[in-house]
Amino acid sequence: MLSEDQIGVALRNVQDPELGRDIVSLGMVRKVEVRERAILITLALTTLECPFTEQIVEEVRAAVLALDGTTHVQVELTEMSPSEREHLMEGISKPTEGKAVHLNRISRVVGVMSGKGGVGKSLVTAMVATELHRRGLRVGIMDADITGPSIPKMLGLTERPRSGPIGIVPVRSRTGIAVMSINLLLEREDDAVIWRGPLVAGAVKQFWGDVFWGTLDYLLVDMPPGTSDVPLTVMQSLPLNGIILVTSPQDLASMVVRKAAHMVTQLEVPILGLIENMSYTVCPHCGQQYEIFGKSHVLGMAMLLGIPLLAQIPLDPAITALADEGCIEDYRLEGFSKAVDEILWRVPEKATTPKF
Amino acid sequence: MLSEDQIGVALRNVQDPELGRDIVSLGMVRKVEVRERAILITLALTTLECPFTEQIVEEVRAAVLALDGTTHVQVELTEMSPSEREHLMEGISKPTEGKAVHLNRISRVVGVMSGKGGVGKSLVTAMVATELHRRGLRVGIMDADITGPSIPKMLGLTERPRSGPIGIVPVRSRTGIAVMSINLLLEREDDAVIWRGPLVAGAVKQFWGDVFWGTLDYLLVDMPPGTSDVPLTVMQSLPLNGIILVTSPQDLASMVVRKAAHMVTQLEVPILGLIENMSYTVCPHCGQQYEIFGKSHVLGMAMLLGIPLLAQIPLDPAITALADEGCIEDYRLEGFSKAVDEILWRVPEKATTPKF
Repeated sequence: MLSEDQIGVALRNVQDPELGRDIVSLGMVRKVEVRERAILITLALTTLECPFTEQIVEEVRAAVLALDGTTHVQVELTEMSPSEREHLMEGISKPTEGKAVHLNRISRVVGVMSGKGGVGKSLVTAMVATELHRRGLRVGIMDADITGPSIPKMLGLTERPRSGPIGIVPVRSRTGIAVMSINLLLEREDDAVIWRGPLVAGAVKQFWGDVFWGTLDYLLVDMPPGTSDVPLTVMQSLPLNGIILVTSPQDLASMVVRKAAHMVTQLEVPILGLIENMSYTVCPHCGQQYEIFGKSHVLGMAMLLGIPLLAQIPLDPAITALADEGCIEDYRLEGFSKAVDEILWRVPEKATTPKF
Repeated sequence: MLSEDQIGVALRNVQDPELGRDIVSLGMVRKVEVRERAILITLALTTLECPFTEQIVEEVRAAVLALDGTTHVQVELTEMSPSEREHLMEGISKPTEGKAVHLNRISRVVGVMSGKGGVGKSLVTAMVATELHRRGLRVGIMDADITGPSIPKMLGLTERPRSGPIGIVPVRSRTGIAVMSINLLLEREDDAVIWRGPLVAGAVKQFWGDVFWGTLDYLLVDMPPGTSDVPLTVMQSLPLNGIILVTSPQDLASMVVRKAAHMVTQLEVPILGLIENMSYTVCPHCGQQYEIFGKSHVLGMAMLLGIPLLAQIPLDPAITALADEGCIEDYRLEGFSKAVDEILWRVPEKATTPKF
């Protein structure tokens, strides 16, 4: 039978990738119990939301299973107390710029864009993220709308992101989506971010380079209206696999959305499809469905741009209520899952190459 | 009785302020008829939309009435042919930068802002402009939403602005509102303006310094979403008399609009009041009125910010239709005239001092 010491030596080979030291010297191994048929290991993590939890557990299991005579390893997780964490962090160096980006493992980056404001980019971002997450994928949302962020409110997030040795750790939504938004860093949610373009674009670059996303299957980037700094920075500095365009039925909106489509095409990013929001509504009094913004031009627009129409979302007071209450993850739209199938099917494996 | 020559000499004292030369040498005086009780003068202007028409006519009348024996002067206006105009322009020097700004006489500049996109800034701008114009005031609209301009489409404008010797001459709407927008300068209305902040802000400065607005009682500035370059430039570089804030009933929108309000307050520009758009709708089937975006938070918001709620605009499919057809000037909302009364009453005489 193995001794606890033998196991301790094996565990010295497991590093916390965020802190850059082995888990034994970091004081993370709290208990090692050798039973007849199994070895039970209790780890105390700095936070249970650590993006590397899965990786650490896997490495612990592998290290112990490599020892002769082990057949079964069970890992239990606890969280350090605030004072333990503080003590630990004192000995750790400050993060260097752009450190996170080399440790992040993000498989696909998809932007959500419109050109026009107020058509529902954040709603679409949250809906796609939620659906992907329901399918068991690891999902993050980067809120790139620096001066008008909606994501934290829609998802009911107010917690301040923790700053770790590698970078800023995104906040987790109720269902487990990793979120980074400027509004999580402000003292009050309605504080204005009065920044000129270079600063705003710099924030987006930091959300990519200095946020410790860990391993993600999908990172969705919620973009602001317009075709200026932020969309330019997202398309030039991030490896994008594609962009979802959001529009509304008004001809006026579609003109501005076509501008965005032309920008995306000029910058050679694939457009995955078009989603129309506020397509129709249902009167709560008589139950009749009608097109509140007039006859939709979306099919013609999709044809003109040569991209598929992925979904039409109604103007539903339930959406407003869920968004205002921070519970947008609870919203389910019949048929929306098909739109996400189409996105998954259409998203290319290869991303664009960032220019700088 | 006066001779035509005597009158010709008198008219040499009248200058075209735009071209900087007297109207006789410019070939603008086409006919002088001396009748028994009146003198009839026919002038050919470069364009009947010349912002100085009124001033030239007044000076012509004054110059001739100053001659002994004149009691009645009648001025008729025609327009030069394109080839005449071209010939005339060949002899005129190109405009120098910032020349227009010294000749413009703009009494009040009022910004329309929201922070949030898609809440109806352009609609409010057009409605306020139309109402002011109906009252006989001279009104202009500067569309400062460079990357997502809506004003030309709403007003049905596609004509390219003429470039005169003093600067760019705004296009006139059907009812006579002077309009300048980047979309009037693009080849196709859905061409994207992919510019970084400094360029976008530069365009706004040009719309102020190099556009020949002439004499206006009110210039309304339709601002883009956000609290970045354009709002900053408008508030720092233009002499503003006040700002109208636009919001929608959603709590999510009001959070972003509060950001804008805080920006305006920090930059010490007076807020004239709040206008809520999409407050309610009426079902076309059963005629019931209901709050489609849920219970409005606008009164609480107005109180919190200490500003009056000026108006509530419904989500009316008629507005969408008129906007899409370019006929928004035809829209009339009961009670909106009171909102404009309040704006006129609240707008301070003194504007902010531009910082650079």
